[in-house]
Amino acid sequence: MTDQPLSESKLHVRFAQLGRGLSDRVLLSPGDDMAMIGLGSASRVLVAADQVVVGRHVRLDEAPQVIGRKAVLRNLSDVAAMAARPIAMIAAATLSPRRSHAWAEQLHAGLHETGIAFDAPLIGGDLATHVHEDAADVIAVTILAVPTLPLDRVISRNGASAGDLLAVTGRLGGSLDATGGGRHLDFPPRLEEAIELAGSLGSDLVAMLDVSDGVARDAGRLAAAGGVDVRIAAATLPCNPGCGWKEAVGDGEDYELLFACRRQPPATLHGLPVTVIGRFVEAANAPGAVELEVDGSIRNITELGWEHAGF
Amino acid sequence: MTDQPLSESKLHVRFAQLGRGLSDRVLLSPGDDMAMIGLGSASRVLVAADQVVVGRHVRLDEAPQVIGRKAVLRNLSDVAAMAARPIAMIAAATLSPRRSHAWAEQLHAGLHETGIAFDAPLIGGDLATHVHEDAADVIAVTILAVPTLPLDRVISRNGASAGDLLAVTGRLGGSLDATGGGRHLDFPPRLEEAIELAGSLGSDLVAMLDVSDGVARDAGRLAAAGGVDVRIAAATLPCNPGCGWKEAVGDGEDYELLFACRRQPPATLHGLPVTVIGRFVEAANAPGAVELEVDGSIRNITELGWEHAGF
Repeated sequence: MTDQPLSESKLHVRFAQLGRGLSDRVLLSPGDDMAMIGLGSASRVLVAADQVVVGRHVRLDEAPQVIGRKAVLRNLSDVAAMAARPIAMIAAATLSPRRSHAWAEQLHAGLHETGIAFDAPLIGGDLATHVHEDAADVIAVTILAVPTLPLDRVISRNGASAGDLLAVTGRLGGSLDATGGGRHLDFPPRLEEAIELAGSLGSDLVAMLDVSDGVARDAGRLAAAGGVDVRIAAATLPCNPGCGWKEAVGDGEDYELLFACRRQPPATLHGLPVTVIGRFVEAANAPGAVELEVDGSIRNITELGWEHAGF
Repeated sequence: MTDQPLSESKLHVRFAQLGRGLSDRVLLSPGDDMAMIGLGSASRVLVAADQVVVGRHVRLDEAPQVIGRKAVLRNLSDVAAMAARPIAMIAAATLSPRRSHAWAEQLHAGLHETGIAFDAPLIGGDLATHVHEDAADVIAVTILAVPTLPLDRVISRNGASAGDLLAVTGRLGGSLDATGGGRHLDFPPRLEEAIELAGSLGSDLVAMLDVSDGVARDAGRLAAAGGVDVRIAAATLPCNPGCGWKEAVGDGEDYELLFACRRQPPATLHGLPVTVIGRFVEAANAPGAVELEVDGSIRNITELGWEHAGF
């Protein structure tokens, strides 16, 4: 065991490897947007956890209700990536002792009310306080969901082949930009759109995730999981106002659906545009490379992307 | 909304109130050891979350594998309190950037190996890093379990009546004492004992929880939930070596089963002693008072107990 510095992405890959072959009950193991557990013959439950670290994922002075809402929305976006339906959530928060009772109540309100709005009630949790006043608040939400698809179908990250199309919902880029309206704090998880997409494409929808770290990184994850590379056409990228291809592939926290499919997807889902932005190709070397066709040349953008930077 | 300082226990009570009547799907709402969700006609899943804050619940220099193990064991103790069986868990960790890759791998090993040992594999999670080096690591574990009891039976905290016995498994006190062998870091969750107890007492087992904040506080919780008071006989308390009644009722992190029952419980469970230590009585004023009979006098010990103090 080498003593390297912490890297979130390296550790995620490592822990996913260690989580394979755990038990017959584990129908989908670590490394996807959610894990899935079998409960007897016909019942399955999906589960995922995501955190908001104050000062890292939101500003230190952000309103507690907004922090709570974001913590839930991030998890709902993971549920959308599986075309599943949320059923409940549980939260664990460790707060700085400088926070007041009212601050904690408002955080709870953000969690509770967002949960109710999406039929995923907050059913429990744990609250702790840090020892030091200046310690960052951490809010971890675990969400439970049920599949909407038949028993033999799961939309994992792991199904793209050479020739498949890469497509995305909505528009990309600028979520952290103040002029972009702070979309990273309040975005619509694509729950209904994902279920409609899965119904519309059937088994031709082969892999999906939600865009949290930017299209370059997240498309690379779909490619790596499928053992292929992917090529994106810059001219096709649906950019938010004020954004070019760099922001569209490099900015994080878009929370749109990014998916691989075997045929043309619907042009819209519940009124939301759907755009084909690229195609999976045979891997040139180690799978997972992401190339961008821009202004007549090809650029490798595998490493272009977003690490949650801190505020 | 008043702007008082943070109190974990006050907020837990407040959030439990807000969590009532959420949805028909929520079969057991916040405020118990676990929440329960219905999944269609015959399938139910229990869920709970608990955290370990480094520097608060374990020493800053504690071995990461030990920290991971404790985070899992605390959750397994909640599963025992419901006489349920664990099926899987998910973890969210926010680590200081001063931690190394090896430290994080050892933390993961503590979670992963303890999960496998108790048939609750770690099926997913999230890893984040703090912005500041001196920020405390937070490890939140969410555990899933399935009931072992018929559909119409749940052993909640909420069933004690006047006349019921108060009983406890094992021995009490001194879990944080270094001479006590650091039991708060490595203790056997009473899973099999709880299932045997529920089978043996049937519907005469009316309420149960695991002792995390000391018998005084936790017996008070059973009493308050049942709308009664409770009287404990100091001479009957099963104390660990070196402990008297003060440690037995006031120390935290015993992780034994504390329960209310309508008839004498078995003397042992899988070889573990079971001791009747008191009896529930009509509430004198607001329910939840805890009295101790010691040396011929009665003392109110409702407020005696343990707040996780920090290391």
